[in-house]
Amino acid sequence: MSEYESEYNFAQELVKDVAVTIKDAFNRTKNISTKSGPHDLVTETDQEVERIIKEKLTAKFPDHRFVGEETVAGGGKCELTDEPTWILDPIDGTTNFVHSNFNICTIVTFMVKKEVQFCLVNNPILEYLWSARRGKGAFLNGKQIHVSKCTELENALLLQEAWMLTSNTHFVEKARGVRANGSAGINLCLIAMGSADLYFEIGFHIWDYSGPSLIVEEAGGVVKDISGKPTDFLGRNCIAGANQQLLDQVIPHIKTWEVERD
Amino acid sequence: MSEYESEYNFAQELVKDVAVTIKDAFNRTKNISTKSGPHDLVTETDQEVERIIKEKLTAKFPDHRFVGEETVAGGGKCELTDEPTWILDPIDGTTNFVHSNFNICTIVTFMVKKEVQFCLVNNPILEYLWSARRGKGAFLNGKQIHVSKCTELENALLLQEAWMLTSNTHFVEKARGVRANGSAGINLCLIAMGSADLYFEIGFHIWDYSGPSLIVEEAGGVVKDISGKPTDFLGRNCIAGANQQLLDQVIPHIKTWEVERD
Repeated sequence: MSEYESEYNFAQELVKDVAVTIKDAFNRTKNISTKSGPHDLVTETDQEVERIIKEKLTAKFPDHRFVGEETVAGGGKCELTDEPTWILDPIDGTTNFVHSNFNICTIVTFMVKKEVQFCLVNNPILEYLWSARRGKGAFLNGKQIHVSKCTELENALLLQEAWMLTSNTHFVEKARGVRANGSAGINLCLIAMGSADLYFEIGFHIWDYSGPSLIVEEAGGVVKDISGKPTDFLGRNCIAGANQQLLDQVIPHIKTWEVERD
Repeated sequence: MSEYESEYNFAQELVKDVAVTIKDAFNRTKNISTKSGPHDLVTETDQEVERIIKEKLTAKFPDHRFVGEETVAGGGKCELTDEPTWILDPIDGTTNFVHSNFNICTIVTFMVKKEVQFCLVNNPILEYLWSARRGKGAFLNGKQIHVSKCTELENALLLQEAWMLTSNTHFVEKARGVRANGSAGINLCLIAMGSADLYFEIGFHIWDYSGPSLIVEEAGGVVKDISGKPTDFLGRNCIAGANQQLLDQVIPHIKTWEVERD
């Protein structure tokens, strides 16, 4: 039996349970609130999905720690210890969700000793479930996935959200194409499955990229912090790509800025 | 019986037939060539799909005219007359297709007297088939769709491809969010189904936007040329949105440039 088998099986049940809640709400008009600013939205469904998952996890694994996007937004701590810890983004791509746009996902990550053990990224609208367990490969709906073989930026499809693009427009000429999907989880899974080659981001949080980074790595890809150093899950930035060669062509040219650590 | 019933039924068969060809090729490595520049790609599958559709249309409707992306790229004329005319984009989003990225579609448009009578936009990977017939509403997989109710740019999800964004970065602050999908057909259908609120583009062609514009209009939306005048299908630009109020907030602020007419 694999390590963390009962945690992994339980996580699969959790994402399937909340998929129903998310699908039900997807096409309805949402009641939205803002958090840190006008572009930082939350809906009742984000909060409801986090409540359901947190409650079930606490009942099943009372000794485990929990870090969730909406719990932190509500004043909870974003603290990472060596203890078994669940990291949750109930709906990544909330703006897409508000607009009934299909690029959304639930991200459930399980860490022990600050190392990701497994991650599930579920898009309940497209019915795409990406998953990875440490050392066991990456999968989409149970079928193994791999990063692309692209090694040159000029042939690469680059994922770059609009707020990064405004200060990094030079990549539009350097890459073959640039796409902005509005979900870090979806972006990292697209890298993992070879549907895009490179992605970098500044300003997001541990629940957006810690688990999906394992999916990229288990698919054969590389994830680093935006300066090329080892990934820092509280540093609020990362770059992910099909291979180190691609990262090397991009890292020196990213116009970056300081963001307060989590 | 509706007008152009046999043409419409035949078009449905056509997109289903070529969906198999596209799906088969989607995950394989593609042999690519460039057309007008390094960002303008074509694959054997684009050409094969166009050949299949053109051959079947010519056999079934020998008197109809045909305008196809790859036929025009091969030196054919992009000419619009009053005759019944089929307009085809075999694979819209070729760069996505090359990268096995799911935002692709086949666009089949039927025009009479320079007016779109119906359009089918089929994404064979997601199995999303959008359709509209003049005066009969717009549909996704047979279910009627409507544009969003968003009337303020600050609450709008804006679709803007990266090459437009580099000269129009100011919209990133003005809109709630900006997404770049890499397919005009997909973008217009997202407007039609209310999954985004606004989209504008310069430099594309009649096969990209003539038919999908009808889908937006039949879903209750508005399509104009980028200066706000009536759409010009040989003018190579358009703006589409959920309503005129949204267009009015954007049109004066678009930084545009001259593109040679088709």
